[in-house]
Amino acid sequence: MSVYVAPLKDMRFVLNELAGLDELSKLPGYQDATPDTANAILQEASKFATEVLDPLNYSGDQEGSKWRDGAVTTPTGFKAAYQLYCEGGWSALSLDPEWGGQGLPKLLSTPVSEMMTSANMSFSLCPMLTQGAIEAMLLSGSEQLKKVFLPRMFDGRWTGTMNLTEPQAGSDLALVRTKAVPASDPTLGDHYRISGQKIFITFGEHDLTENIVHLVLARTPDAPEGVKGISLFIVPKFLVQADGSLGARNQATCASIEHKLGIHASPTAVMVFENAIGYLLGEENKGLSYMFIMMNAARFAVGLEGVSIAERAFQRALAYAKDRVQGRDLLGGAKAVPIIRHPDVRRMLMLMKSQTEAMRALAYVVSAAVDFSSRTEKTEERQRLQAFVDLMIPVVKGWSTETGIEVASLGVQVHGGMGFIEETGAAQHLRDARITTIYEGTTGIQANDLVGRKIAREGGVTVKEWLAVLRKIDLDLAISGNSDIQAIRSRLAAGAQAVSVCVDFILATAGKDPNAAFAGAVPFLKLMGIVAGGWQMARAALVAEKKIASNDADQLFYAAKITTARFFSDHVLSQAPGLAATVVSGAAAVMALTEDQFLSA
Amino acid sequence: MSVYVAPLKDMRFVLNELAGLDELSKLPGYQDATPDTANAILQEASKFATEVLDPLNYSGDQEGSKWRDGAVTTPTGFKAAYQLYCEGGWSALSLDPEWGGQGLPKLLSTPVSEMMTSANMSFSLCPMLTQGAIEAMLLSGSEQLKKVFLPRMFDGRWTGTMNLTEPQAGSDLALVRTKAVPASDPTLGDHYRISGQKIFITFGEHDLTENIVHLVLARTPDAPEGVKGISLFIVPKFLVQADGSLGARNQATCASIEHKLGIHASPTAVMVFENAIGYLLGEENKGLSYMFIMMNAARFAVGLEGVSIAERAFQRALAYAKDRVQGRDLLGGAKAVPIIRHPDVRRMLMLMKSQTEAMRALAYVVSAAVDFSSRTEKTEERQRLQAFVDLMIPVVKGWSTETGIEVASLGVQVHGGMGFIEETGAAQHLRDARITTIYEGTTGIQANDLVGRKIAREGGVTVKEWLAVLRKIDLDLAISGNSDIQAIRSRLAAGAQAVSVCVDFILATAGKDPNAAFAGAVPFLKLMGIVAGGWQMARAALVAEKKIASNDADQLFYAAKITTARFFSDHVLSQAPGLAATVVSGAAAVMALTEDQFLSA
Repeated sequence: MSVYVAPLKDMRFVLNELAGLDELSKLPGYQDATPDTANAILQEASKFATEVLDPLNYSGDQEGSKWRDGAVTTPTGFKAAYQLYCEGGWSALSLDPEWGGQGLPKLLSTPVSEMMTSANMSFSLCPMLTQGAIEAMLLSGSEQLKKVFLPRMFDGRWTGTMNLTEPQAGSDLALVRTKAVPASDPTLGDHYRISGQKIFITFGEHDLTENIVHLVLARTPDAPEGVKGISLFIVPKFLVQADGSLGARNQATCASIEHKLGIHASPTAVMVFENAIGYLLGEENKGLSYMFIMMNAARFAVGLEGVSIAERAFQRALAYAKDRVQGRDLLGGAKAVPIIRHPDVRRMLMLMKSQTEAMRALAYVVSAAVDFSSRTEKTEERQRLQAFVDLMIPVVKGWSTETGIEVASLGVQVHGGMGFIEETGAAQHLRDARITTIYEGTTGIQANDLVGRKIAREGGVTVKEWLAVLRKIDLDLAISGNSDIQAIRSRLAAGAQAVSVCVDFILATAGKDPNAAFAGAVPFLKLMGIVAGGWQMARAALVAEKKIASNDADQLFYAAKITTARFFSDHVLSQAPGLAATVVSGAAAVMALTEDQFLSA
Repeated sequence: MSVYVAPLKDMRFVLNELAGLDELSKLPGYQDATPDTANAILQEASKFATEVLDPLNYSGDQEGSKWRDGAVTTPTGFKAAYQLYCEGGWSALSLDPEWGGQGLPKLLSTPVSEMMTSANMSFSLCPMLTQGAIEAMLLSGSEQLKKVFLPRMFDGRWTGTMNLTEPQAGSDLALVRTKAVPASDPTLGDHYRISGQKIFITFGEHDLTENIVHLVLARTPDAPEGVKGISLFIVPKFLVQADGSLGARNQATCASIEHKLGIHASPTAVMVFENAIGYLLGEENKGLSYMFIMMNAARFAVGLEGVSIAERAFQRALAYAKDRVQGRDLLGGAKAVPIIRHPDVRRMLMLMKSQTEAMRALAYVVSAAVDFSSRTEKTEERQRLQAFVDLMIPVVKGWSTETGIEVASLGVQVHGGMGFIEETGAAQHLRDARITTIYEGTTGIQANDLVGRKIAREGGVTVKEWLAVLRKIDLDLAISGNSDIQAIRSRLAAGAQAVSVCVDFILATAGKDPNAAFAGAVPFLKLMGIVAGGWQMARAALVAEKKIASNDADQLFYAAKITTARFFSDHVLSQAPGLAATVVSGAAAVMALTEDQFLSA
């Protein structure tokens, strides 16, 4: 049976050589985030992920969370694991020290999240949603609400949820109907009465903690229609008394949980609010704008799930490929050999490995940019970094999740017939991964955000700045004498050219022919992903070349990095020109059929 | 709830306009296969698929087949459906009339199989395996064995299975260990005693029929090692007496069935043979060569499963996209619209539709080539057609199944969050489809067959003949005044050029550097698939152009065909040059790492 082992060496490489951890630790507030501290944290997290979470992944999937009479029981072992998670202090790693967080940079909480998610994606969703709720409350909550709720959420005693979706309102939150009616009461003070149904509420009900803090989008009676009439409320499962102890049960109940393709251990609740007591967060009608500010973090977290599942699927496939004996070596020999010797199995493993490393590098670099942006004193530099983050978030989310599914599916394929058998474990990764391109905004939504808000709206300024960065690294690649690096250089240049052509097309069409600009949005997002991933792999190859030249002790690791970057450029980045062709010339046929012409029955 | 409706219009279009049904019906033995008869058969099959099989698809998945004490119970309704299947005469449509078959061309049984598989893939596997067993027996069985078994298998009273895989012998059948010891007995006559364990045996045990005829690969005591020492045996579940009635229970038992990702209604048996009585088919040690002859049919059938699942997933997604209201039209309007109006949803639907139509056209054209080859009197023409079939079988199998998974996954994506909920039905198609790239030879095995046996071994003769066909159609495309057809022409020419470059590379390297030739085998197979699919879509567009010019009544259908072909060329065929780059320059990095360098923990 394959056991998850955190890819600490690659994580450290990315943190130190690509994402600038050392530089980051010189910024105010991040002085503790030295490479040594980072090492210690990664070691501990790795131990927790491997020893506590990984053993519950398959059993949790098989057992699933169970609903009965409004209560949800999580799978065997989850409660104890959650306890250990809180005791280990993992719940507030990069949160504000003012409320009990450890204040570490996002760059350090990112590999920790990656490990926990690799080991057990279902489990990881509960803390992830709680952090989202915490961030929304930090952003918009009154001091009083923060004092009551935050300390208990920071230490994990209470968890948080995000109640956005309703049956008729998924990607389109303008259609939210849940009502919030202002009320007042001598004991409760000012509050609202919330009524409506929410669906797809991750960990909306569970047995891990004594209380659950629901964040709920709803409309007040006189709210304007559409997205400008949505407010955000706190609706706790149990009301909280003045001394912080739990009071009455609120009318926020779980009507059922979904029967899903994957993440079976994570209960996906249908929540019913019947005159439930809620407290406004921030101002009325600004709920969606608070959500939007948080959205970067949530989308990044889901993008990272793509990296996590890809890594886990890769490790499982690699272990099988080394162990499974089948077929003869093409170079000769009468005996059957481990299947890792066969070119196509290696090709699959390299596709898994190279894309996982490229996605990891991009995600960590983006999370470092979040940190640099938040601590840089110069306004212009901060805005520039923030714009880079805004540009890359839909790429990290969309590309890493689409690729995560592809990698998980390759993992099944490497296993052959055994991959289709649930006991093997490979199929679970594919089932779990399949939600990641959907929740927190589908790939289509990410791509529209990328094309519309992040490129067209600002006239392509930020993406062109990034293209300038690519031209600069081209000069560094040009002086290398390494033939792999030369091959990488030519593919990366073609990739940058492909992006450039598409950006010009988007800028020219978004205003006058939006259907044409958006018809190629997802192929464009994929193009951005592979070029951004190729950029990081090229940077990695340059670092590796230097390390090898300086006789660094770990020659094998650095040689592998160059080979992996070369593979990525020939097998993945090579798709860039074809994607650009689709973006630029593929729009006509997308919209041409009438709706009746689709069927030919 | 989406209901399967057979795409009869497109099927007829392909049969008549692309695959040459009319010409085929002029050949000896196929006189009954006129377009009118074809229509009647397709209508009936469509009714059966929609009314009998489709309603059992989701319930069959949820209920699954159940094992208890060696017996397997299929899901509710399967037994009655199987009865209707036999009564309808569907079991021997294209089989030899000498034994009770209807002798129709494969070109006509192909759309029938497509429909049944679209409606219920799990169900369809039982007849599919039975046909495989029948074909093996027709090929290699003695008259006496045929007389006992074939009539009862032709009319569906008994089903057949293929027992190839063992725990240590999957893709590599050289490793088969099951033993067959010759024996003789006054009552049984000459026979063998079979002992061993077989896994992954589809419908190896079930309650649909009174007997099951297992075809089993095993080794006789003095057999040479490897693939040249494997023989093929008939091992019935119940022995058959001289008068054809059932005798004693044979020691061929089902030890368990697998817990799988998909096709839950289809029982996948672990079969244990303990001194079971078996009868040799053909000659000793030739078992694998009989299997190889049948393999084209089996691989084609699985390729067609890719088409079938893609069609079903497309229909479900289309119905949802027309129904689901969410988001505003990019062109304006304050009200939310059906999501089919959004460019990215359309792009996904067009990807589903265009690839399904391209795969269908290629599969039907290949099945017509099988028919033409079998009835053509000129030896040279027959060999030429057979070589074309041999070249295209791994493409139909590998490309259609990989694409079937992609289309099923797009189907989930179109549904958004609902796609992840099992009750929606979209997820089942993805789970079911996921086996198709694995069984009957993984995509890697297909690609190795394509590169090694079908191209390198014959010096590329057949693939070059096919490239000449592509050059010829380029001339036809050149004279069209339709701008879509001109766009298609340029992509198809680039695709043909990409194939040509790869063929030269394969021919140059297969002998001296096999790892390099085979490292790109799967990308090459994918390239072959999209170019062959593009070829058929280009042919379809030319036919459609003529029909439109001749004022054919169905202008909308033909206009949609041209648009769909154009979409395919811009969104799928556009990947061809990138794939060729991977094939030609991507080998170096595939084999470069040592096995220890893969992990960076």
